Amino acid sequence: MDISKRRHNLVQPSAEAYLIASRRCELMNLQYFLQMGKLVQSISNLVHGLQRERGASSIFLGSGGEKFGLERKTMVAESECLYTVFKRALAEIHEELTTHPVSSHLLAHIASALHGLESLTALRVRVKARALSVPETTESYSTLIQRLITVVFEAADTAVDPSLARLLVAMVHLMKGKEFCGQERAAGSVGFSTGRFDSALSRRMTHLVEAQGRCFEVFVEFADEQSGQLLKSLLAHEREQEVERLRRFGCAIGRYKPLDPEHADHWFALMSERMDELKKVEESVENSFHGRCAERYADARNSLAHHEVLIAALEQPENSVPSMLVLCEPDNSGQIQSGEVWNSDGIGQQSGRSIFDLVQAQSRRLQQMSEDLQSAKDALEERKVQEKAVLLLMRHRKINNDDAHRVLRKLAMDQGKKLPEVARALVSMADVLK
Amino acid sequence: MDISKRRHNLVQPSAEAYLIASRRCELMNLQYFLQMGKLVQSISNLVHGLQRERGASSIFLGSGGEKFGLERKTMVAESECLYTVFKRALAEIHEELTTHPVSSHLLAHIASALHGLESLTALRVRVKARALSVPETTESYSTLIQRLITVVFEAADTAVDPSLARLLVAMVHLMKGKEFCGQERAAGSVGFSTGRFDSALSRRMTHLVEAQGRCFEVFVEFADEQSGQLLKSLLAHEREQEVERLRRFGCAIGRYKPLDPEHADHWFALMSERMDELKKVEESVENSFHGRCAERYADARNSLAHHEVLIAALEQPENSVPSMLVLCEPDNSGQIQSGEVWNSDGIGQQSGRSIFDLVQAQSRRLQQMSEDLQSAKDALEERKVQEKAVLLLMRHRKINNDDAHRVLRKLAMDQGKKLPEVARALVSMADVLK
Repeated sequence: MDISKRRHNLVQPSAEAYLIASRRCELMNLQYFLQMGKLVQSISNLVHGLQRERGASSIFLGSGGEKFGLERKTMVAESECLYTVFKRALAEIHEELTTHPVSSHLLAHIASALHGLESLTALRVRVKARALSVPETTESYSTLIQRLITVVFEAADTAVDPSLARLLVAMVHLMKGKEFCGQERAAGSVGFSTGRFDSALSRRMTHLVEAQGRCFEVFVEFADEQSGQLLKSLLAHEREQEVERLRRFGCAIGRYKPLDPEHADHWFALMSERMDELKKVEESVENSFHGRCAERYADARNSLAHHEVLIAALEQPENSVPSMLVLCEPDNSGQIQSGEVWNSDGIGQQSGRSIFDLVQAQSRRLQQMSEDLQSAKDALEERKVQEKAVLLLMRHRKINNDDAHRVLRKLAMDQGKKLPEVARALVSMADVLK
Repeated sequence: MDISKRRHNLVQPSAEAYLIASRRCELMNLQYFLQMGKLVQSISNLVHGLQRERGASSIFLGSGGEKFGLERKTMVAESECLYTVFKRALAEIHEELTTHPVSSHLLAHIASALHGLESLTALRVRVKARALSVPETTESYSTLIQRLITVVFEAADTAVDPSLARLLVAMVHLMKGKEFCGQERAAGSVGFSTGRFDSALSRRMTHLVEAQGRCFEVFVEFADEQSGQLLKSLLAHEREQEVERLRRFGCAIGRYKPLDPEHADHWFALMSERMDELKKVEESVENSFHGRCAERYADARNSLAHHEVLIAALEQPENSVPSMLVLCEPDNSGQIQSGEVWNSDGIGQQSGRSIFDLVQAQSRRLQQMSEDLQSAKDALEERKVQEKAVLLLMRHRKINNDDAHRVLRKLAMDQGKKLPEVARALVSMADVLK
């Protein structure tokens, strides 16, 4: 790329060279995220494929091999295809990934996801031979899907551009929400096909519904306008009323009232449709991400070119310079940033002053970006703290994940506080008690 | 380096390859910080030189050119020399700096520091011609020194290894504290040489003494044991009593009681000696940093080599493998980490399981490192928030920096809260009111 070719001009340390280097560094990072967008897209597709495969495998096993035999085979073939695309996306970003010095977490999580994917073939053989139970199969697929989502989470954590970080945070929460939806489909299928929801299953359904809700809230907060609207219309669609009706069976009906097993197919079809629609929202975010990346990249390249011209002009005052130089660098709102418009009167006599202006403007701009980035990073941090609080509760009280979530929610309700606040308090207390 | 040569083995995405890549990424980053240590050292030396030059220039100007003429010239020559060393350190790390995608802030601040350094020659010409006042000169040098310290601050912010981040946080606070000491020397010199401290000057002295105290507190919290002890013995030295005695003149005596101007030379000599001693503490931190970097680097290289051997063994189960493989990777406390000791019984039949263990161990290790890193990053974040709160107060109340610090301290005292807490509350309120 042109970036690496230009690098060697800079070896003499000067303010101008480092100003340009700072801009190039941003450019390089945007290039990296353009490719990261493709990787995230391939993960979103692969996760969707695995979710479909998980659903089909469960029904296949649950029906004693009578249903979904063919569908499962087709879906396996599709997933294999998506796995290949994922590996290709990974190979394309490989160079950048492995030279990015802060991405050792990301790389470790990719290793973990790949390891899971490598064991898929063995899992499928056992499913085909009906050598596994429905819960075991669901669990295996879910673990793998969770690892793939974690890769997107870690990618979001390495973003330094606030608008890109926001979209990745939105994406992670949407993927998480869709996965809770997938788990709800599985839990509901068990209930409807066996004809009853015991209290553990009802509780699980309630937990999964609430967890989806929270993910979608965070999503709407961080997504672009259009994708946010898309999710809102999905949640306002008439299908949701039917989903709600069936959920009420699952959550409200006691364990002694048998259900019509006919509901099972209806539920599965309805929830599958819902997940396909959620997938479309993911695609909308991906498009926004790609568009935003390309836009920021074009801006940054333009702005770098402007800086190079300006600095060349400042260094050679004998050259003719237009009387007013305007750095056309729109900020997020599309307006020209103040502080980047300046008069060239000073060039020649006071070239130092003008380079000073450029240096100051770059520092201010980066400072503003840091502050904007913070809210997106806070959302990721909150999720981490909540997961840590849940793990703590699981370990200390010897309860399962769902119950730990419930304890946390109850604590928040009892204390009239927000969930992240209670989670943080719990984690900090645990550190003290350790 | 051997790292880049090995990179091309990894193009086929597999869990093993990414596990190794994650380790290599850590190694690369440690290599970067080994060089960063040299840059920080050259900045510490350059700042010390500029502080000496600032002191000599002030006395030269204050005495109407009678005193410190020769000393100033020698110090200018020394600073020039240190500037060259700094530029060399910068050139050596240049490649890594400009390809590190998250360092655009760091690069922008280096640009800003270099720009200040480039204007030094012009400043010196004006000092020599006695065309500047003492406050103007002090201000120019102080701005430049502040920019150099900010480079170290930003370097600390890019550290991902917790033990290295802690030492850099300690270093930044020590450098800041030493600079407050330098400013106190300047303020005291003005008071003693004019024979009086007006109330503004007394307030400034009080502020600078308190600011030093807070910096040294944070330093002791984050420094290595030995450097922390070194600072403590410095602060317990008998020189401190003499400094205190002179400070009391400055802070306590009213504006109408003239002082013996003889105190001026004594004060300057005493404070200069104090700064030279603080410089030695900086050198101790630098040594610890270098030692820690080299140690972590050797560990990481060893551990990478072990992983490579292990993974090769796992991939070729026909090779003979010792019956118990122990990854000798001591953690911070020097103990072998659990989870990295595992039995090789599984190799062959269950090689997947063993690679899974390695992958899990790497994830856990990185997770622990993230958590340890947090407290160091928090100290940096607190400093940022305090500086933001001070800026807010300056802008809203139209007061100067010292007064803003005082308002903040008073708020904290009145509310019985800690300074960072009050600063955070102020900043968050300002966001709401904006």
